[in-house]
This record gives sequence, structure tokens and C-alpha cells, in this order.
Amino acid sequence: MEKLKKRLLKFAKERDWEKFHTPKNMAMSLSCEVAELLEHFVWLTEEESTQVMKDPQKAEAIRQEIGDVMNNIVYLADLLGVDPIQAAHDKIPLNEQKYPIDVAQEISRRHKR
Amino acid sequence: MEKLKKRLLKFAKERDWEKFHTPKNMAMSLSCEVAELLEHFVWLTEEESTQVMKDPQKAEAIRQEIGDVMNNIVYLADLLGVDPIQAAHDKIPLNEQKYPIDVAQEISRRHKR
Amino acid sequence: MEKLKKRLLKFAKERDWEKFHTPKNMAMSLSCEVAELLEHFVWLTEEESTQVMKDPQKAEAIRQEIGDVMNNIVYLADLLGVDPIQAAHDKIPLNEQKYPIDVAQEISRRHKR
Amino acid sequence: MEKLKKRLLKFAKERDWEKFHTPKNMAMSLSCEVAELLEHFVWLTEEESTQVMKDPQKAEAIRQEIGDVMNNIVYLADLLGVDPIQAAHDKIPLNEQKYPIDVAQEISRRHKR
Repeated sequence: MEKLKKRLLKFAKERDWEKFHTPKNMAMSLSCEVAELLEHFVWLTEEESTQVMKDPQKAEAIRQEIGDVMNNIVYLADLLGVDPIQAAHDKIPLNEQKYPIDVAQEISRRHKR
Repeated sequence: MEKLKKRLLKFAKERDWEKFHTPKNMAMSLSCEVAELLEHFVWLTEEESTQVMKDPQKAEAIRQEIGDVMNNIVYLADLLGVDPIQAAHDKIPLNEQKYPIDVAQEISRRHKR
Repeated sequence: MEKLKKRLLKFAKERDWEKFHTPKNMAMSLSCEVAELLEHFVWLTEEESTQVMKDPQKAEAIRQEIGDVMNNIVYLADLLGVDPIQAAHDKIPLNEQKYPIDVAQEISRRHKR
Repeated sequence: MEKLKKRLLKFAKERDWEKFHTPKNMAMSLSCEVAELLEHFVWLTEEESTQVMKDPQKAEAIRQEIGDVMNNIVYLADLLGVDPIQAAHDKIPLNEQKYPIDVAQEISRRHKR
């Protein structure tokens, strides 16, 4: 992760692109990258979406979009002085409080699949 | 990162929510989380966006949204059998090819800030 | 549609909000509104999504999100000097060329539902 | 608008694509179209974004994206039995209540541009 951050900063610095990389712009860019990932799933059924990586060409395209999303969020987090892995860990107990196990299981029971 | 994945899988399993977590649905969920992060930046100038973390309340809210985005992409990558950090690293040389340094610097020169 | 545009411009003018409403910001805002609409569908099956308007409370919430998306795109189009209905009409023949009927029907045949 | 709806339904019917067009899928597709519009604005300053239509090639590309967004939201609204223009009108008084003029003007005063 540290190495990834360094490579991303170097990429931007070499291109004199740091001036474009404000938090506002990086958040917009992240939205676009996520939509490119989403695009692969729009017309698939949920079932088909679980099999999508069996097609090597699609698998590679999706893997690249995941790479773009990761690079974007890691870069944006760095700009904002946030450790993304730590922020992810710290959100879990908040989500546990927000969705208590018994309430969540009840939701699950009501939605048969 | 390994620990994070395990905590996310445990969170879903305890709630019987795994059946909802198809790649299609997780990609949709990721789009929603990214929009919640984006929302913090819509009405800020680019300059203001660089100062946003000085307000402790906003900083905490943004940190939590980054956590949500990370949890979502890490979970989705795991579903698809992709190592997100490796995918991020592997995308960098492709971006270097796509945006050669001299071309990129020329773009930078044309856009004064 | 003309009346709608006038009401939106009046809403912004009365609040001295026109200065915030640059095309860049309105496009970001549109992304956020669309995500609020998307949120209603994340955990539904496709089948459930066809029944979602039977619940009056959800129906009203979704109707309001559609209203927000429309207001946003109509306002943004006006900012950019685009007639949104005309732009929509003009895109149809381009989509017809992009997806010829025989090719499109073949895609349909390959994806049983 | 009525004519637009009819053309969109005909487009889908001729291609046997109606089975793909569940509300869930159309909401996803809308997110992707909006991101394609957003993409044009990511690296522009707000000021540059106000001038973007002066470039005829970009103007045409943006106009087409607005057309795609409109077609998508109009089609989705129709699927859900919602009149999009009426929903847009009905949302305005709710937004007026949410952002009273005096509060909104105060926000405006605090954010010099």
C-alpha cells in the first residue's frame, strides 16, 4: 500500500498533473471510474454476474477497472490525509451498530432468494 | 488487508446477507457509496476542497465515506477473485503507456492554474 | 418544460445560488441525485424492482428522486444552451445505427431470461 | 415528450430488449450515462466548464450525453408509471421548504466566489 501511494504520486509528479488533482476533482474522477466498473454488470442477471470472471477477456477488463478504482481512492485518501485501510477498519463497528445482527437476519428472512 | 477481508466476510455471514452480495449488487452499492463521498465536494471550489479536512466534523464524515468505499471495493474484488492492491499496481504501467510523460506535460502546460 | 425551466431559474435566483451552479458543479450534483435514485434498487432482485411502486411510501420516495434527477438535468442542459428533449430525440437515430436491429435481436436471443 | 416515450419503447421492442429493461437495470444504466456526462467536466475548472460549449466538437459530445441521460430517465420513469415532468414540478415546493430563502441566502453570503 505504501509502495502503491508512492507510485501514484510519482506518476502525477512526472506529468505535472498535481495541480489538477484537487480532492474535488479526484472525487469526480472516482465516480467516473466506478461507473466504468458498473458498466460491466448493467445487463447481466445477478446470477450471470457471479460467473463473469470465467470469460478471460472480461475478467481482465474488470480487473483493470478495479485497479483504477483502487488507485483513485488511495490517491484521494492520501490527498486528504486519510489512511484508507484504517478508515475501512474503523467503519466496521459503526456498520455493526447500524445493522444489528438480529435486525439484519430478519431483513434476510423477509427476502427469499 | 487480509484482516479487513475477513472482517467484511464475517459481517455479511453473521447477518445472512451473503445472498444479497452478488457482484452486480456490490457494484451498485459501490456507486452509491462513492456518490455519498462526492456529495461532500459538490458545492466547494477546488481550493475549498483542499481545506475540507480542517473542519473536524466534516473530516470525520469524509473519513467514514472513504471507509465505506474501501470496504465495498475490497469486498467486491474478493467476490470476483481479484487482489485489489495487485490490480492497482498492475494498472499503473498501462496508465503510463496511455499517458506518456511528454504528452501529459504538454496537456499540463496548456491548462494554466 | 418551459415552465419548469423558469421555476428552476427562479428558485436559484431567489437564493443567490446561481454562482454555485456552474456546469461542473451541476454535473456533480446530477451524479449524486442519480445515486439516490439507484439506492432504492441496490438490494432488490430485478423482479422485485418491477413491483417497487406497489408500496406507496417507496413509490413516493422514488417519484421524488426522479423529480430531482429531472430538475438537475433540465437545469444543466439550460446552462449549456441545450434543449434536453431535442437532444434526446436526436440521440435515437444514433443509437439505432449503433445497435442495428438484427445484431440487437441476436444479443437478445443469446441472453435467455 | 409523449413522442419521445413512444420512440424509446419502439426502439426497445424492435430489438427484443424489453426483458433487459427492468427498473433495477435502467437505474444502473442511468448511472453509467450520467458518469459519461460527468467525465467531460472532471479536469476543467468551474470557469472552464462555463465555456465548454464554445468548442463545437465537445459541445456535440456533451449534447449527445445529455440526450442519453434524458432518454434513460424518461424510459425509467415510464417503466415506473411516473410522469417525469410532473414529478420535477412537484419536487420544487419540497425543495423550497427544505431550503428557505433566508437560510439559502445566508449560505450564499458565507461562500464568496
